[in-house]
Amino acid sequence: MSSGAAPALTEVEVTDGSIIYANEPLPAYLDDAASGKPAPGGGSVSACVGALGAALTSMVCNLTIGKEQFAGVEGRMKEVLAASEAARARLQQLLQDDTTAYSGVLVAYRLPKETAEEKAARHKAVQDGLVVAADVPLEICRVAVEVCRLAKVAAELGNANAVTDAGIGALLGEAAAVGAALNVRINLGSIEDAEYVRRTSAELEAILDEAAALRADVLATTLAKI
Amino acid sequence: MSSGAAPALTEVEVTDGSIIYANEPLPAYLDDAASGKPAPGGGSVSACVGALGAALTSMVCNLTIGKEQFAGVEGRMKEVLAASEAARARLQQLLQDDTTAYSGVLVAYRLPKETAEEKAARHKAVQDGLVVAADVPLEICRVAVEVCRLAKVAAELGNANAVTDAGIGALLGEAAAVGAALNVRINLGSIEDAEYVRRTSAELEAILDEAAALRADVLATTLAKI
Repeated sequence: MSSGAAPALTEVEVTDGSIIYANEPLPAYLDDAASGKPAPGGGSVSACVGALGAALTSMVCNLTIGKEQFAGVEGRMKEVLAASEAARARLQQLLQDDTTAYSGVLVAYRLPKETAEEKAARHKAVQDGLVVAADVPLEICRVAVEVCRLAKVAAELGNANAVTDAGIGALLGEAAAVGAALNVRINLGSIEDAEYVRRTSAELEAILDEAAALRADVLATTLAKI
Repeated sequence: MSSGAAPALTEVEVTDGSIIYANEPLPAYLDDAASGKPAPGGGSVSACVGALGAALTSMVCNLTIGKEQFAGVEGRMKEVLAASEAARARLQQLLQDDTTAYSGVLVAYRLPKETAEEKAARHKAVQDGLVVAADVPLEICRVAVEVCRLAKVAAELGNANAVTDAGIGALLGEAAAVGAALNVRINLGSIEDAEYVRRTSAELEAILDEAAALRADVLATTLAKI
């Protein structure tokens, strides 16, 4: 669940961080996502989808590297593999980070607001929390579009027997970026720092444009090869 | 990895089915997807992404049902929840089924081909295997577009605090459908039953058109509510 405006605190509990989703069985992660629990929500799931896209990109590299007929692109494919595994590790961490990204906002909303000083401190804490809550999915967007870029190279240069996996890698990178961007935007709506909102909106727009173009490009390459 | 044409058997081993991915830790599933192992490939990962989309749709229902302000849509949301949990269970099964969907083709390619009778039997076995290998991702496409339909209702009628989760549910349903469709198509290219190819291609086109329209529709609803 994601909330930009002040949520009813009876509806949204602060996650206590006791569940480390990155180590949980796949069905437990899915069960918790389906439940009314505060985590994992759409931001974490977007990171998970980006990690799945990175994994498929790595697979294409692993099915290319070491084969004689692809010796000419071996160096490039090793670079792509290192980058896609780094992106996957980052997204698997962000999958976890996103489950607590909003908890600072919820804690801030519970601060006292009797005196003018308390109100000002609470207001600042809420605003600081919202920036953290936006920054985590923003970072998911950045890494997700990198997955699209890497999938493009894998589709073009990698083992054609696995080209559909590169195509799916790109479309999962795009879906992860679009999904995480929704969670950035919901927080931007409550952030008062106009310069942060302007800069972040511009970066999001550039990321989503690039991701959409890469998705179309890589799917066209994939369809041409199958 | 997915392969339509006869693969080099040294490159693709038949999965022995010993890993039940549906019970594996999330990182083990991701690690195996990233590896050069034959499973899980893009079809299984597409089913996983569809299951994640179904889970987010269920989450929106669970954050709506039982709340006084949504009493008017409670019956409808309970129907959507039952359907999205059924879709999720089906996709979690297909996530597993896809890991062995292609193994029948690989077994068939290893059949003897000395005599004319052996050649004919091998040919029929390969063709039968290809239809199975296409049917599993086709079923993933069918359930994935159903996830998009359910996410649309969740976005329109559900708790607006969770509308981004409905939006992400729809875009993951679409990504799962497009991804699985690539794995159907790669097999269609080798299937000689023209009527099967015609019927399946037409169904795929209808599914992908509907999924694309639903993704755009639900994302527009989501952006209008945040």
